[in-house]
Amino acid sequence: MSYKNIAVFGKYQDDSVASHVAELVSFLLTQNVKVYLGDTTADTEALNNLSLERATDEDLANVIELGIVLGGDGTMLSAARKLAPLGIPIIGINLGQLGFLTDVPLTSMSDDILKILQGSHAEEQRMMLSLEVIRNGKVIASSHALNDIVVSRHNTDHLITWSCRVNGKLVTSARSDGVIVSTPTGSTAYALSAGGPILDPELDAVVLVPICPHTLSNRPIAIRANSIIEITVAEAEPAHVSADGQRQCDLQGNEVIRISRSPHSLKLIKMTESDHYGTLREKLGWG
Amino acid sequence: MSYKNIAVFGKYQDDSVASHVAELVSFLLTQNVKVYLGDTTADTEALNNLSLERATDEDLANVIELGIVLGGDGTMLSAARKLAPLGIPIIGINLGQLGFLTDVPLTSMSDDILKILQGSHAEEQRMMLSLEVIRNGKVIASSHALNDIVVSRHNTDHLITWSCRVNGKLVTSARSDGVIVSTPTGSTAYALSAGGPILDPELDAVVLVPICPHTLSNRPIAIRANSIIEITVAEAEPAHVSADGQRQCDLQGNEVIRISRSPHSLKLIKMTESDHYGTLREKLGWG
Amino acid sequence: MSYKNIAVFGKYQDDSVASHVAELVSFLLTQNVKVYLGDTTADTEALNNLSLERATDEDLANVIELGIVLGGDGTMLSAARKLAPLGIPIIGINLGQLGFLTDVPLTSMSDDILKILQGSHAEEQRMMLSLEVIRNGKVIASSHALNDIVVSRHNTDHLITWSCRVNGKLVTSARSDGVIVSTPTGSTAYALSAGGPILDPELDAVVLVPICPHTLSNRPIAIRANSIIEITVAEAEPAHVSADGQRQCDLQGNEVIRISRSPHSLKLIKMTESDHYGTLREKLGWG
Amino acid sequence: MSYKNIAVFGKYQDDSVASHVAELVSFLLTQNVKVYLGDTTADTEALNNLSLERATDEDLANVIELGIVLGGDGTMLSAARKLAPLGIPIIGINLGQLGFLTDVPLTSMSDDILKILQGSHAEEQRMMLSLEVIRNGKVIASSHALNDIVVSRHNTDHLITWSCRVNGKLVTSARSDGVIVSTPTGSTAYALSAGGPILDPELDAVVLVPICPHTLSNRPIAIRANSIIEITVAEAEPAHVSADGQRQCDLQGNEVIRISRSPHSLKLIKMTESDHYGTLREKLGWG
Repeated sequence: MSYKNIAVFGKYQDDSVASHVAELVSFLLTQNVKVYLGDTTADTEALNNLSLERATDEDLANVIELGIVLGGDGTMLSAARKLAPLGIPIIGINLGQLGFLTDVPLTSMSDDILKILQGSHAEEQRMMLSLEVIRNGKVIASSHALNDIVVSRHNTDHLITWSCRVNGKLVTSARSDGVIVSTPTGSTAYALSAGGPILDPELDAVVLVPICPHTLSNRPIAIRANSIIEITVAEAEPAHVSADGQRQCDLQGNEVIRISRSPHSLKLIKMTESDHYGTLREKLGWG
Repeated sequence: MSYKNIAVFGKYQDDSVASHVAELVSFLLTQNVKVYLGDTTADTEALNNLSLERATDEDLANVIELGIVLGGDGTMLSAARKLAPLGIPIIGINLGQLGFLTDVPLTSMSDDILKILQGSHAEEQRMMLSLEVIRNGKVIASSHALNDIVVSRHNTDHLITWSCRVNGKLVTSARSDGVIVSTPTGSTAYALSAGGPILDPELDAVVLVPICPHTLSNRPIAIRANSIIEITVAEAEPAHVSADGQRQCDLQGNEVIRISRSPHSLKLIKMTESDHYGTLREKLGWG
Repeated sequence: MSYKNIAVFGKYQDDSVASHVAELVSFLLTQNVKVYLGDTTADTEALNNLSLERATDEDLANVIELGIVLGGDGTMLSAARKLAPLGIPIIGINLGQLGFLTDVPLTSMSDDILKILQGSHAEEQRMMLSLEVIRNGKVIASSHALNDIVVSRHNTDHLITWSCRVNGKLVTSARSDGVIVSTPTGSTAYALSAGGPILDPELDAVVLVPICPHTLSNRPIAIRANSIIEITVAEAEPAHVSADGQRQCDLQGNEVIRISRSPHSLKLIKMTESDHYGTLREKLGWG
Repeated sequence: MSYKNIAVFGKYQDDSVASHVAELVSFLLTQNVKVYLGDTTADTEALNNLSLERATDEDLANVIELGIVLGGDGTMLSAARKLAPLGIPIIGINLGQLGFLTDVPLTSMSDDILKILQGSHAEEQRMMLSLEVIRNGKVIASSHALNDIVVSRHNTDHLITWSCRVNGKLVTSARSDGVIVSTPTGSTAYALSAGGPILDPELDAVVLVPICPHTLSNRPIAIRANSIIEITVAEAEPAHVSADGQRQCDLQGNEVIRISRSPHSLKLIKMTESDHYGTLREKLGWG
């Protein structure tokens, strides 16, 4: 068995997953594996009876070799941001709704996980973004994102005015509700709702998507993933930065929001090579 | 002279307009008109020297016959919400940027206002919306809007889930950043940025525009202006309602946001019949 | 029984409908009704054995009181263009795919038609467009449309340059693949694909939708249904005009394409008041 | 002087360029350069007097080292398709309208060309597409494109049904007016009008853009430039394939339209490193 120390991430505060989490953990314990509970996993009686350890930052850094996620997109994104920088691969259990990142069906969970643990699996890499917010020359916030970094108006009814430089050159400035910088993985999420294109998972690109821009010709721009993207927001306008939907930092207007490709990628463990466009066609009702 | 009592609304806290406001007021005083200062007009030395009265609610309700706005869109919208329900017509001075509602150029302000006061003018009616937010059977907030009523996510990074009934029938439900209900006047403003159509000013319609909807087929819907629109937002999600960009009410999730045609229209006084599409072509760079 | 002379329109050259048409006709004949075959109905052995008359223009003008359509959108549009100007109402049989205009399910066709014939039904009016193509002061083509009039590039790979006047005033000019003028009924068809809004069936409006305009700010414009719309196309560019997807006229560039509200509406006979938005939600996968 | 044999491509059948072409040629002749006339250049008296040779295919293949284009986008695209496969670089003269590919202003044409000929210039590479239309196993048409390959309905008012495989895997199928496969260079042309994103010129990608798709969720997809794209169109529907707006082939429905990265790139000679986004901001009216 290749993985001896596994962390299980259950959907946060969601009782409906509790029994499945317990079932998964019980199965893993029969496989001579040490199981830790990830931080998103809710306390439940069934789990408490199993007396598992919570995965500490130290455990993750030193011991844990695999994460299994039993939750929705939010749980997956949260686990990815934590595990990818540590090089720990992730398996996603599909709780019912078709997912891009989760391919093990709940109904055959134990069988499929067993096969994967025995070595029968494919691995996919998903690029991530690195975020640094810089004020007066100091990094005041930093994070990673699997889907997207979003700069958006905060608690106000007025548009924000921003500009974006790529590798030091001014690319665009706009007044809008905000701007999304999305990876290929995130291109089927919020960026798509805001009018962005779908980026193939293997395309080495990120896309800048203005949100409801005042000037109608302010269209999405796809650029090389290795670019250094720097966004600034005009001073008077309340705004904030999020990574994968988690607010990271409020802005005063004198910050540089620097976004670049993360040195870390998410390693996704899947049963077979994934049929990304099959999932897309089904989720989006094509054809 | 048809108008004897006129309120002047200057752009809020904007010194650059102060001298023009003073010039306008001085001119009006030479025309045997009583001038009141509207609430948006900033205090400035030049105006203080003229010892004008501030327009009280009582003045507006009983005495004032005309409003003249010397500001941007925000000032115009604010004045419209205050004066239209009282039946007071408005003249908009164009401060430089081409405007849909302001047609008197700053450069010929005195001459043009004189002509208008002498009776040479056209009048345009713009429909307005009426907003009531109802919680537990009680109206907890109400307002008017010339451009739009917007329900939007408030201080959060998650989509809101809402549904909309028109004249009692379910029309649509969606997950999105929010939803705009726009008049023809507002259809060239925020609603356009969110993907809405342009509504002819004479069309008796409003348009519902979902903002970045999760389901891509959730498209703008134009309905009869006389419809009763009722929007509800799912409980767990922080959201608020704005009218013309002014926040009116935070939502708990148990409210009905009722939007209907206001009994009041804005009466716009213009020098000549306006060339709405000429302005549109110029502002949007058509042809 | 209110209707004594009924024309049946089957899907054109489609064998799969033949048995259903025969079933419908046989049922109608038991109801003491005279049945005529509409021009779209294919010859089939089963029908030939019934020795029915084909509905002539004279029959339609003088005798026929009701049309029943057993086909897809195309058959419905074709029947509507023929019957609506004569004031003849239409019933649409739903062949399987959910339709906006067809609400009698095939499975209960006889029972439902019987109820309708006995007087239990609702009636809906759908506005139609009138088209005249004028060259050198002469009308060289004219037609009606239930969905849309489309001016589009013809057999070329270059954009067309057109301009549009509404009630004599220039509204917009653009370079694009073409332009759609759509009714509320057509707003869920081609116009939607081209980025147009959904128009409520009761809204007294039409919408102009440029097709892939070169200038990104050339957005759909909704105007009053009573407007006179005049489109001209620049001379050098091959283009043609269609009504409900049927080519009406090739353009040389010196024509005026005049579109106005038709004096005739389609009278749709339905089992009950239709749930337009229920159909829309299902077809578009909302909520 | 680095280039001794230069072909000049003037705008096709356009008298307004004739005097500028003659001026350019005359200048080049003073620089001890042999000048050939490209096939797009119209015959004019001024040129005839100079007794220049027309550039034959042999000249282009063996002798000519540089092309100079004095025309619009169409002339540029035409020259690029001819010269890029032969490795001949191109200089574009800007005739007035700001261009992405033409940076030498007409007003300083001679001075600037002189500087370039003397070695002071930058070079940019633009990827191109290769097209093969395959019927019954045989290539029946092939071409190159700098902007885009477009499959579109031909002479009909009905949508076409197509599907697209990338590297052998089904990606999408749709009903639409057609589909565009665009390079980064073409992403600011027709693809943008059809709702596609802007692709950075340095991004190694192409984008598939469905034209007015019937299913609203059929969105643009950006994929790796090295992909093999294969499009098929359903049999019954008249359609054709174009490359850079030039019709290449009518389709019967049993063809495979194979699109891949061309082995040849366009070499653009520019005065200085180009400010692509500056041009974009100006052309699209951003900020």
